[in-house]
Amino acid sequence: MASKPVWEQIGAGFVQHYYQQFDSDRTKLADLYTDASCLTWEGVGFQGHKAIMEKITSLPFQSIQHSITTQDHQPTPDSCVMSMVVGQLKADTDQVMGFQQTFLLKNVDNKWICTNDMFRLALHNFGA
Amino acid sequence: MASKPVWEQIGAGFVQHYYQQFDSDRTKLADLYTDASCLTWEGVGFQGHKAIMEKITSLPFQSIQHSITTQDHQPTPDSCVMSMVVGQLKADTDQVMGFQQTFLLKNVDNKWICTNDMFRLALHNFGA
Repeated sequence: MASKPVWEQIGAGFVQHYYQQFDSDRTKLADLYTDASCLTWEGVGFQGHKAIMEKITSLPFQSIQHSITTQDHQPTPDSCVMSMVVGQLKADTDQVMGFQQTFLLKNVDNKWICTNDMFRLALHNFGA
Repeated sequence: MASKPVWEQIGAGFVQHYYQQFDSDRTKLADLYTDASCLTWEGVGFQGHKAIMEKITSLPFQSIQHSITTQDHQPTPDSCVMSMVVGQLKADTDQVMGFQQTFLLKNVDNKWICTNDMFRLALHNFGA
């Protein structure tokens, strides 16, 4: 049986690690970003490790649980891995909400880090 | 007044062009892909200009109309532009469906082409 392509293993491994960390202790996500990383969270941009972690750690909920519905991974011409995730999340006692998130992963010093990260709640897609 | 960052102009210009072409005559999308491009359409992968266009042109509808709800754009460390789109589409007389799509754009020979493309209908996110 053929094993999964390497980019899919890298992307799926990152995605699993990212949401496990996010749900258990999101301060530990710091290792995944560098000073060159970009995050766009609900349309607002943050650049660099420090600004990204300030945003993530200041999100106004105590507990959160992500569940992944679909994930797609591709290799890019610059030897990165692009991953698109569609899922659902439950923050504190709020109702379950859909979300989509895209990551671009790059190998820097033998470690896969996230250079680009975009997050949107799915509720934007069901307006009036 | 500050103008928009260049990567946002590139990403927004591509997104507008892509959906206009898709809705009017999707055979003309061929110019946007190269032999190195990857498309993942509803979880199924296609590599290269020819395979991608065969997939896009064989989609089983006559008319389609996309409308964009949100779009985010970022520069990447390899001088590409990553764009994530959330929107709605109406194919033939089907009901309106949400979708999400991510593009990675690269400048090749002074032209912005799409190296990576991932598409998912949002209905996956609202299963039982």
